[in-house]
Amino acid sequence: MPSKRTLKMFLDELASSTPAPGGGSVAALSGALGAALTSMVCNLTIGKKKYAEVEPSMKKILVQSEELRETFTSLVDKDTLAFNKVMEAYTLPKDSEPQKALRSAAIREATKEATQVPLEVMKHCIDALALAQEVASRGNTNSISDAGVSAIMLHAACESAALNVRINLNALDDSDFTGWKADELASLLSTSRMMLDEIQAIVEEKMKND
Amino acid sequence: MPSKRTLKMFLDELASSTPAPGGGSVAALSGALGAALTSMVCNLTIGKKKYAEVEPSMKKILVQSEELRETFTSLVDKDTLAFNKVMEAYTLPKDSEPQKALRSAAIREATKEATQVPLEVMKHCIDALALAQEVASRGNTNSISDAGVSAIMLHAACESAALNVRINLNALDDSDFTGWKADELASLLSTSRMMLDEIQAIVEEKMKND
Repeated sequence: MPSKRTLKMFLDELASSTPAPGGGSVAALSGALGAALTSMVCNLTIGKKKYAEVEPSMKKILVQSEELRETFTSLVDKDTLAFNKVMEAYTLPKDSEPQKALRSAAIREATKEATQVPLEVMKHCIDALALAQEVASRGNTNSISDAGVSAIMLHAACESAALNVRINLNALDDSDFTGWKADELASLLSTSRMMLDEIQAIVEEKMKND
Repeated sequence: MPSKRTLKMFLDELASSTPAPGGGSVAALSGALGAALTSMVCNLTIGKKKYAEVEPSMKKILVQSEELRETFTSLVDKDTLAFNKVMEAYTLPKDSEPQKALRSAAIREATKEATQVPLEVMKHCIDALALAQEVASRGNTNSISDAGVSAIMLHAACESAALNVRINLNALDDSDFTGWKADELASLLSTSRMMLDEIQAIVEEKMKND
């Protein structure tokens, strides 16, 4: 569990010569950091007289952002596990034709599965960005830079996950699957970019008026 | 020390209603994650026959990226400490004119100091992006997505730190200081953006040819 590791241990493992955890796990962690910052803005808004009006919605957002934080945190390790499964498939014997066929099938299946994890990260980023937008618009203005950083980390998570989806798709020769996923990826990426731009405009406006 | 905390503890503290650690610490952590991924690509390149030619330069890059990782990690806590100093200054008494003057001066000094930490993060991001560009260009192609994620996290760190510089500058009325810092910030941000674009073009090219 990443949650049991110290930050230092995680960074050491990352920097080491083992290929996992790698960029895929960092994408998920970036999502968890983004969701945590949205939660923080909620927590710094709830209970403040000036923001009494938005308190019920901030409480709802907090529940959702905390759920997303948990999901992202679990995806940090899921990505590492999925990657290790692909590596295992590559170690299968390939001495005979049947063995070669089995090995290819195992690699294909493991790679498809490994594509799902970063794709899931991307989808959750869109949900989390919607919450970040809410807290940027209506949360405590003193925390506006935290709402901005939340959005930056969520979009970075989405872009990073996209690279991991693509490197897995490159390894697949199943063109139906790869074509469909590539479309999904492009749409998620452009949505995330658009949401970040919108949130950054809100942050800009609030920083000016501060 | 952030290094002694588990990931879960750090994320919990982040999400809580204490304003620090917040976006400033996340900016520094994002830098550490980016630097760690550059180190990982170095480690996955060193010792490989195919990359024997670049091995000496990868070893040099690794030393530098590990130094930067350590610097970024220490800045995670430095940001929290600097923020807490600003908060302390605000709690100083303001019952008399001399007290008010002392309090204002203390807030100003603490805020200037708090501006330095994210500005330092931004400068280190530029150095780290130069290393990420090297490993994207000449490192192990199998790790090209990790080099890409490294650059994404470093630019996200730079953008996040910029928001923290700006929110501190907003609180200062020292126009010489703020004008000078604002120029420095704009130049660092555009350099970081340009470097990310360049690295993403390299990653794109290598992913296509894979």
